[in-house]
Amino acid sequence: MPRTSPSLEQLAIGIDIGGTGTKFGIVDRLGNLLFSSEMSTRNHKDLEAYIDELYNNVAPLIQKAGGVGRMKGIGLGAPNGNYYTGTVEYAPNLPWKGILPLAKLVEDKFKLPVVLTNDANAAALGEMMYGAAQGMNDFIMITLGTGVGSGIVANGKLIYGHDGFAGELGHTIIIPDGRMHEGTGKKGSLESYASATGVKLTALELLEKNDTPSLLRNVPADQMDSKKVYDAAIEGDELAKGIFEYTGKILGMALANFVMFSSPEAIILFGGLTKAGELLLKPTKEHMEANLIQVFQNKVKILVSHLKESDAAILGASALVWEMK
Amino acid sequence: MPRTSPSLEQLAIGIDIGGTGTKFGIVDRLGNLLFSSEMSTRNHKDLEAYIDELYNNVAPLIQKAGGVGRMKGIGLGAPNGNYYTGTVEYAPNLPWKGILPLAKLVEDKFKLPVVLTNDANAAALGEMMYGAAQGMNDFIMITLGTGVGSGIVANGKLIYGHDGFAGELGHTIIIPDGRMHEGTGKKGSLESYASATGVKLTALELLEKNDTPSLLRNVPADQMDSKKVYDAAIEGDELAKGIFEYTGKILGMALANFVMFSSPEAIILFGGLTKAGELLLKPTKEHMEANLIQVFQNKVKILVSHLKESDAAILGASALVWEMK
Repeated sequence: MPRTSPSLEQLAIGIDIGGTGTKFGIVDRLGNLLFSSEMSTRNHKDLEAYIDELYNNVAPLIQKAGGVGRMKGIGLGAPNGNYYTGTVEYAPNLPWKGILPLAKLVEDKFKLPVVLTNDANAAALGEMMYGAAQGMNDFIMITLGTGVGSGIVANGKLIYGHDGFAGELGHTIIIPDGRMHEGTGKKGSLESYASATGVKLTALELLEKNDTPSLLRNVPADQMDSKKVYDAAIEGDELAKGIFEYTGKILGMALANFVMFSSPEAIILFGGLTKAGELLLKPTKEHMEANLIQVFQNKVKILVSHLKESDAAILGASALVWEMK
Repeated sequence: MPRTSPSLEQLAIGIDIGGTGTKFGIVDRLGNLLFSSEMSTRNHKDLEAYIDELYNNVAPLIQKAGGVGRMKGIGLGAPNGNYYTGTVEYAPNLPWKGILPLAKLVEDKFKLPVVLTNDANAAALGEMMYGAAQGMNDFIMITLGTGVGSGIVANGKLIYGHDGFAGELGHTIIIPDGRMHEGTGKKGSLESYASATGVKLTALELLEKNDTPSLLRNVPADQMDSKKVYDAAIEGDELAKGIFEYTGKILGMALANFVMFSSPEAIILFGGLTKAGELLLKPTKEHMEANLIQVFQNKVKILVSHLKESDAAILGASALVWEMK
């Protein structure tokens, strides 16, 4: 429900840098996205050139929103973003390699204070300020997209860890000696199973392993994706439903471990895979409960984010600005 | 290094209630244990009678330390203790069942403010104030005894979770469908392997599974324990060394998962199993590093607590008092 912002109210700029696209917008304290747009992340091999283009795209929005004087600062969400150092370190999905002083570069270009964190932490802040986690002091945000990201809030604060990299729950090992993760070389991590990529791999594995008839047998291997698995499951395809059950089993086991770590009030799921709805959520809940010791059972809510996906990343990044000192 | 406390300085009472014994003492702000003693936890089926005996044992120490007027309060550490409610809930190792209003009962008897938490959380506080975690804002305490307990500190604060039960890392599932835990009925938890009980079970399993000659073959099954495995390993017994390697492998995998959760500066190990020293620590470190993604590698210290075991529990419980409002 957008309301009009008082004319002198401060605003925040939220920028979400994804592997493919960069989304940005101007947000007020109530979480209204006043102006927004997007651009490709992949047009420039040179990081400075990318930031120049970013500035040229954001500047008109700043003008529309009343000028730079109304901006309190910029919140940046980016994969492998480090809150303490303002750098992005060895992000496999970005076109620039090594350690990137992203916050510093954006600050110099925009002449505004900049805070950076990883995209899942930003999403957690967005949920806490505007979404399903409002009023919660202890929750875990899990993003189920191409990969699995996470943001953990305990005692009302994001956990950054001693080095700013806490909350890499997608890389926790759930199945020892399990499926190899191409990006990390580690075996059996949550991300190898409970991501869009993982669902695709599970589909290909199950199709090869047995002879069950399935609609998915008509899909060429290189065109298999979680959307096609979903469509088949909705048609009642048993093998496709089994893929989500398997994914939910592993996700549920992982969530049980996370609950026994920080005992959150809720786990909030976000991202493409959540579109599978109960096909994924039902086995996830069952296996989470089955792996919890008694004291945690039937206490922890599993919620699906109700923020609009395209806006949530910007809202989350902008939420960083209100936390600035 | 005990120093003399100024005569008007406030003191804290620390009480650690274990499955077998109850330890208690009077502690100053510097962590000097001024007076201490202990008693059995198992003399009374009736909780009130136990608290009466506890009072009768602690009261003389209070007198020696200058009287009740100098006492700021009482810190209680107990298995399954809940910081928020002051209750002990369904503790399998205590003689009293159900939900026990322990803090309230002790408060009424002693006429002093009481704070309660679980024993591993108390140990973490003790390490933070007086031990290996001094100056750290992010660390994880793991107690390796008959069971596996844990206390997690992030952003300089203990994580209690939304219900006060956070930090049950001993019950996280490391080997899906692995060894059954007798107490919880769950399979493959860390505690089933990386505890004194787990080491004993691993010894019996390995002895049965293969024909390797071993000193441990002379030990009757009902007399097997981690101490005997240690003694054999020190003698160069290959099977015994293999037991610690296996234990360290599973502990290391678990620690990697914990690191990817909260990215602590250090993991502090405490309790009987740590006496195995490098026999356990070397494989633990190796397997932790092997399961970490790059950004966490070679950063996290594994430290063994250097607090005297008999004092640490009391110090930890007393540390709760200084946090009281």
